[in-house]
Amino acid sequence: MKRSYAFIGCGGVGGYYGACLQKAGFDVHFLVRSDYRFIKDNGLRVDSVRGGFTLRSVQVYATPENMPACDVTIVAVKATSNHLLPAILTHTVKKNGTVILLQNGMGQEELLARTVPAECILGGQAFLCSRKLGPGHIEHQDYGALTFAQFTPDGSPGGGTERMRDAADDFRSAGLEVNLKDDLQAARWRKLVWNVPFNGLTVILNSDTRQIMRFPQTRRLVEQLMVEIASASAAWNKPIERAFVDLMMDDTDRMIPYSPSMKLDFDNQREMEIEAIYGVPMRRAEQKNVAVPLIKMMHAQLSFLDSRHSSTASGKA
Amino acid sequence: MKRSYAFIGCGGVGGYYGACLQKAGFDVHFLVRSDYRFIKDNGLRVDSVRGGFTLRSVQVYATPENMPACDVTIVAVKATSNHLLPAILTHTVKKNGTVILLQNGMGQEELLARTVPAECILGGQAFLCSRKLGPGHIEHQDYGALTFAQFTPDGSPGGGTERMRDAADDFRSAGLEVNLKDDLQAARWRKLVWNVPFNGLTVILNSDTRQIMRFPQTRRLVEQLMVEIASASAAWNKPIERAFVDLMMDDTDRMIPYSPSMKLDFDNQREMEIEAIYGVPMRRAEQKNVAVPLIKMMHAQLSFLDSRHSSTASGKA
Repeated sequence: MKRSYAFIGCGGVGGYYGACLQKAGFDVHFLVRSDYRFIKDNGLRVDSVRGGFTLRSVQVYATPENMPACDVTIVAVKATSNHLLPAILTHTVKKNGTVILLQNGMGQEELLARTVPAECILGGQAFLCSRKLGPGHIEHQDYGALTFAQFTPDGSPGGGTERMRDAADDFRSAGLEVNLKDDLQAARWRKLVWNVPFNGLTVILNSDTRQIMRFPQTRRLVEQLMVEIASASAAWNKPIERAFVDLMMDDTDRMIPYSPSMKLDFDNQREMEIEAIYGVPMRRAEQKNVAVPLIKMMHAQLSFLDSRHSSTASGKA
Repeated sequence: MKRSYAFIGCGGVGGYYGACLQKAGFDVHFLVRSDYRFIKDNGLRVDSVRGGFTLRSVQVYATPENMPACDVTIVAVKATSNHLLPAILTHTVKKNGTVILLQNGMGQEELLARTVPAECILGGQAFLCSRKLGPGHIEHQDYGALTFAQFTPDGSPGGGTERMRDAADDFRSAGLEVNLKDDLQAARWRKLVWNVPFNGLTVILNSDTRQIMRFPQTRRLVEQLMVEIASASAAWNKPIERAFVDLMMDDTDRMIPYSPSMKLDFDNQREMEIEAIYGVPMRRAEQKNVAVPLIKMMHAQLSFLDSRHSSTASGKA
């Protein structure tokens, strides 16, 4: 029998992958916040560069209490909601069930491990350009590959586990590309090489990836930020070769002009994932005495902008 | 007989000081760009924390050709217009007449010295919160002290010169505070201690001095930027003591929430003085192998924002 999946979140990431799995015949359950009624009534629509589709009937929940305990729980909410996870996972994770944290940034599996056994936790990363256009309406713009890696409490390589292979088999059977990594922390640092420059700069400069890459001084700044992350990663024994930085630059040049998730969050006055993407890596760099002045400056600028939004939001309440 | 003054520019700086001198009985001539007709017809109005006044009749010019050669020419336009000065000063500077460059930033007297004898050039700084509210309408919000210092081509202290004392006497007789400095470059570096953090951060974060000072992380960033300038200054044999940085922090805490000139320029889609305030100091720091990563990052961010404005402007044309 096919494995059951609980998706926590049905935005650009959870909505896309969950819909792909359901379309491939898996038993998928979505926990959503504001769009419950709409999805219950109308289902889930995916517009995709690979061809769109609509799921007329979706198993959707507004609260976790009635969700079934599933073989695999995919956490696809923003890291800023992670404090809500313990109460949710009690319901969705069956005994020895897998949890895949499909998030950006760093240091979040460590929080999860306080409530779920470490061996049940996979860290996942989505190399995906997608977004929620409206309730129950996902636009998949580009890419889509996933990586899974085993979490270990001490940050050492977790190797390949059966849990990783099982989940990968499922996603692949839904036509998705999955790459298994033996070192979660190394994978997290590598993803930050792209996330650190572009998430923050698109917010601070109110711009997109292409404009930033095409202006010589900000292009150089992107590269310097990438090099800061690579230095910090190396200090944690996860060396990142220079060629990888070059590859990220080239990939971005070839990408469509893109607004990363933090830009969309900021534009929609949602809280930004500043701690997961900037705060934790910055503190880990400093723990190893690696100077990351540019990341620190961005952290300060973003925190300021975030505080302005929060005060605006509370002013409206 | 009282000395004659040509003011190049009639904005928040030139309009305020020029009006004060005219009110005190000096023969003052203003070269203005867009507000010629309005000022010719309506005069010049100053709203000031020290009590406002209106000058009904003002000697105002749209082009320099008909201006008289004056004893003192005050350059009170933005540094971004300095390429226009040679053609203007031909008309307004009498033989052995004084030119006072009342501008922010660094490296601008050096440009002027290509057309005016070095001994005739004073560098001036206005510690002034003021702005143009509309044509011929200046608001003086706070402060107002001036410093004058003798320019020297090699950056050595120019000492006190008669030219400085003469101009200072005139301004003082108009009720203005003037401080004479024997070292122009030292004075320029010291002014940058305040200008570098606040001009750029208020633009990048779309904020004012008080909000930036009250948020702990940006407050720390301000201090770090001040320290970068102090390090660069020290490398040029112009040491800035730590107590001066603390004083600038304290002064800003006591100031009314303020938008520096660069913020006003940005908000009004005018070119920003990026090279005078960031570019020149950054390159001088690097000439002495002083690392200024935060200033460089701001320079890149501001240049990007400026280029966006320029492309918008040309897009409209």
